[in-house]
Amino acid sequence: MTAGIYAARKKLKVIILAKQIGGQVLLAEIIENFPGFEKISGKELIEKMRLQNEKYGVEIKENEEVKSITKDNEFFLIKSKDNKEISAKSVIVATGKTPRPLNIPGEKEFEGKGISFCSTCDAPLFADKKVVVVGSGNSGLCSARDLLKYASKVYVLEYAPKITGDEWMVEELKKSGRVEFFTDVAIKEIKGSKFVEKIVYQNKKSGEEKELAAEGIFISIGWIPSTAFLKGFVNLNEKEEIIIDPKTNESSVKGAFGAGDVTDIEYKQCVIAAAEGAKASLSAYNYLAKS
Amino acid sequence: MTAGIYAARKKLKVIILAKQIGGQVLLAEIIENFPGFEKISGKELIEKMRLQNEKYGVEIKENEEVKSITKDNEFFLIKSKDNKEISAKSVIVATGKTPRPLNIPGEKEFEGKGISFCSTCDAPLFADKKVVVVGSGNSGLCSARDLLKYASKVYVLEYAPKITGDEWMVEELKKSGRVEFFTDVAIKEIKGSKFVEKIVYQNKKSGEEKELAAEGIFISIGWIPSTAFLKGFVNLNEKEEIIIDPKTNESSVKGAFGAGDVTDIEYKQCVIAAAEGAKASLSAYNYLAKS
Repeated sequence: MTAGIYAARKKLKVIILAKQIGGQVLLAEIIENFPGFEKISGKELIEKMRLQNEKYGVEIKENEEVKSITKDNEFFLIKSKDNKEISAKSVIVATGKTPRPLNIPGEKEFEGKGISFCSTCDAPLFADKKVVVVGSGNSGLCSARDLLKYASKVYVLEYAPKITGDEWMVEELKKSGRVEFFTDVAIKEIKGSKFVEKIVYQNKKSGEEKELAAEGIFISIGWIPSTAFLKGFVNLNEKEEIIIDPKTNESSVKGAFGAGDVTDIEYKQCVIAAAEGAKASLSAYNYLAKS
Repeated sequence: MTAGIYAARKKLKVIILAKQIGGQVLLAEIIENFPGFEKISGKELIEKMRLQNEKYGVEIKENEEVKSITKDNEFFLIKSKDNKEISAKSVIVATGKTPRPLNIPGEKEFEGKGISFCSTCDAPLFADKKVVVVGSGNSGLCSARDLLKYASKVYVLEYAPKITGDEWMVEELKKSGRVEFFTDVAIKEIKGSKFVEKIVYQNKKSGEEKELAAEGIFISIGWIPSTAFLKGFVNLNEKEEIIIDPKTNESSVKGAFGAGDVTDIEYKQCVIAAAEGAKASLSAYNYLAKS
């Protein structure tokens, strides 16, 4: 959305194609770390950005999932899933990522109602509460560390037979006396009435099922960048993120830029993705001036 | 301000020291490209961020200009101009930059009242108006190009005997028929009543003084990053900006980070500087966890 604002203010002709405008941000009931807004819902923030785009004449086409992008001489050909075609002189990919799902009952139902995928965003919402972190890789351990500053108790549940993240972090977490680790367990279900109340897990050895009372579930088992449609078009890293020049957002294809969580930037945060959109548009503008 | 929000939400103890909170943003009468705000004044935006910081317990100390930073073992010693001292485990420098001034009458008076230092930010405010760009380096020519999308007429004034920016841009600008170049001229004064109305310049050869009617003056003669107090502490580039790792904001000194316009990032924009603050704090948090 920020790429749209920046490009349109440079009087470029901009079309935004998206399955759904807003992406991950829409899942956030409350955002408290976007500068300028003490508290705002993801929906409301996206709505404001949509209006800002429309003000500058950006054409927004929703329900237009892109199937492929190819480049022929100086033009990009963008094909959508229902076979519409658009030709463009420059393209910015800002398709984000989706959390790897557990695929268990309750997961969809409690999204944004106790289930979170971002401890940097949501840890402060769980002051003095019990929370579960699913996944004990470094990302799960970092979530546990973030949560420990707020939550009264943190449970870390790991499917593998042992903790997979760095030992120094495990030690630090254990020292707190408020983190409990469970390995070799499978998550079976998330339960609650309006909000998350408990998680059902199974001891994989004994087959026994148990419940843990918790108000928050932080799922940290990885992300899937939305880049499947880009394979063979731009260079991706081992996580399948678009490799960009961190200063200019250029991808491996001249005239094609990446912005936000879909790229190999270090930190995935709403305000950072917004800035990356601005950077990508400024680079696209410079590219177009010279082409 | 965004670094403060991010660090405090990670429960770090944060002190913001500044000559004046807000810096350059305060000069903007209207900001229209910060995502989420259709129109907001710089003052208002900074005030919102200040409240957001205070909500998380960030201690803000204004009128505290930093004189020097040194590192002794694991601690940074920050000295202010009135000889107060603060010791910290990590430091983020986000002191911004100031435009190189013309030092002429009217310059201070019409700041934000027709005088601008950012065409990306302010070009849309000058639709169908006459504007002057001071400086014909690439930055001045880019300003002229931005302005040409909105303004009816663009004058580019250059002190040197010839245009100093790239020839291809000069040609593109000339082709429009709406850009006029003046070389070998000295700017003498900016005049107006409430807003800018004209600029007085002198032909350096003949000594003759003339006036140009214009509602906007874009000064593009360079920037001074606020890094004088950092010399010998962190590595600076040839523009005296802090050299940072563009992914993590690390400077050449472990535990010291840079954020925003004071660093060697490519694009200097409000939302980008905000994101850079978030990145710097997330890196500082990671650094502190391991130290």
